[in-house]
Amino acid sequence: MKTVETFDALQEALLRLKRPLGLVPTMGYLHKGHLSLVKRAKQDCASVVVSIFANPTQFAPGEDLENYPRDIDRDLGLLKGVGTNLVWIPSVKSMYPDDFQTWINVEGVSKPLEGRVRINHFRGVATIVSKLFNSVRPDKAYFGQKDAQQAVVIEQMNRDLNYPIEIVICPIIREPDGLAMSSRNSYLNERERHAALCLSRGLNTARDAFQKGEKHADKIREIVANVVNEEQLAELQYVSCAHPETLEELEGEIESCLLSMAVFIGRTRLIDNIVLLQPNT
Amino acid sequence: MKTVETFDALQEALLRLKRPLGLVPTMGYLHKGHLSLVKRAKQDCASVVVSIFANPTQFAPGEDLENYPRDIDRDLGLLKGVGTNLVWIPSVKSMYPDDFQTWINVEGVSKPLEGRVRINHFRGVATIVSKLFNSVRPDKAYFGQKDAQQAVVIEQMNRDLNYPIEIVICPIIREPDGLAMSSRNSYLNERERHAALCLSRGLNTARDAFQKGEKHADKIREIVANVVNEEQLAELQYVSCAHPETLEELEGEIESCLLSMAVFIGRTRLIDNIVLLQPNT
Repeated sequence: MKTVETFDALQEALLRLKRPLGLVPTMGYLHKGHLSLVKRAKQDCASVVVSIFANPTQFAPGEDLENYPRDIDRDLGLLKGVGTNLVWIPSVKSMYPDDFQTWINVEGVSKPLEGRVRINHFRGVATIVSKLFNSVRPDKAYFGQKDAQQAVVIEQMNRDLNYPIEIVICPIIREPDGLAMSSRNSYLNERERHAALCLSRGLNTARDAFQKGEKHADKIREIVANVVNEEQLAELQYVSCAHPETLEELEGEIESCLLSMAVFIGRTRLIDNIVLLQPNT
Repeated sequence: MKTVETFDALQEALLRLKRPLGLVPTMGYLHKGHLSLVKRAKQDCASVVVSIFANPTQFAPGEDLENYPRDIDRDLGLLKGVGTNLVWIPSVKSMYPDDFQTWINVEGVSKPLEGRVRINHFRGVATIVSKLFNSVRPDKAYFGQKDAQQAVVIEQMNRDLNYPIEIVICPIIREPDGLAMSSRNSYLNERERHAALCLSRGLNTARDAFQKGEKHADKIREIVANVVNEEQLAELQYVSCAHPETLEELEGEIESCLLSMAVFIGRTRLIDNIVLLQPNT
């Protein structure tokens, strides 16, 4: 496994990699969710490139950029263990030089949900992902369903900007008790870690009700909210029952939806989601 | 020379082209300026791809999109004559499907000059050029100095978005009497064609004064304005004496500048420019 930092070293290293080439963009502090992406890429591709870059432009002022967990040595060990061919760790200065001024906006699908509460978040995501795509020119790129709206934004950008790249969205990986894997779980103390189960519990409760015939979007959102509100350490920021592709909020009876939520557990902000589908659709 | 229309046909044709690959983006109705780009690309590259696409998103409402001249058969003959390997002619519908929503903004250098009078023009330019870059994945891309601000915007985007592409800017090609080649020259009637010489005459007069020691930005702009204003059919939209890289308008004594202008000749809007440089810089 080779590790490079500069753009030029990356270009040279890429010349030696066999195609098809898979790219797994990460912000580091890797967990089993990230590794599942690399493993899937290894199945599909002759070579796998992983980028590690905590992208500052997708954090709003006051968010957790400064505290975002980092452990490069551990990350490299994990990546080696799953057969990664090349790791790219660019510097912030090289990705955002002083005269940087180019931004990509995916206007429609960036607006609701996370976009409403995390100002410029998806502008930062779209811009950095485009930069990674351009730098690596992969055949396939892998992202997690955990960041469901991010997946929709990137798929839209990939289509709109004519990237000859196949976007592969991989399932959420969960802890045995249901908590969705996230680098931010490391912020949680023991009590908070327990409280954080209200996210997956809320989604599962709504899924069970949906499977038993509850089809009203309002009611489904209410079921999730009720589960979260029972948890003292939790504060629900939003729960959404939205069209899985357009991300428009749904009303009335639904056939399918992306059920997603953001919850503060103490000062830690967690997100989770599930896609609800009628068995016959 | 092969001609393709769809994205998939393009991808297949690209596999058969030898690298390095040069891309020459055009809006069609080709003239010697375009052909000079293709010839330069042929010198540098093993294969040359030319795109023909009158990009609707870089025209504002009321501009000349509907009347923009087209003659694909003539274009193809000219391109064949200079050794083009592949011509890509995408449809508007394929480049901008109904749910298209992704835009690229190069914020700083898009603002002055053309950006001030052509709303969203450079957003359209940056977005389509990025789409062409992603679709073709060239090693080098060729643009004309005629559209000086466009060249600066594209170079900035290319750096900011980490394209592994070398941008090559080629000199303005002029008619024997000095008029800069432009597809829009075809709009001019005989009287207007004569009047249009005031653009290059204004630039040349200013250049001569600069070379004889006139260094004041105000004075240089005034020289150009005076020449244009002497021409009855001409209406000066702007004349600018700007920093060649940042495009910030210059004041006081200058050492170098991009001297550029936009002039209406009747209903036809023409632009032209020259870079003024001290002999010792």
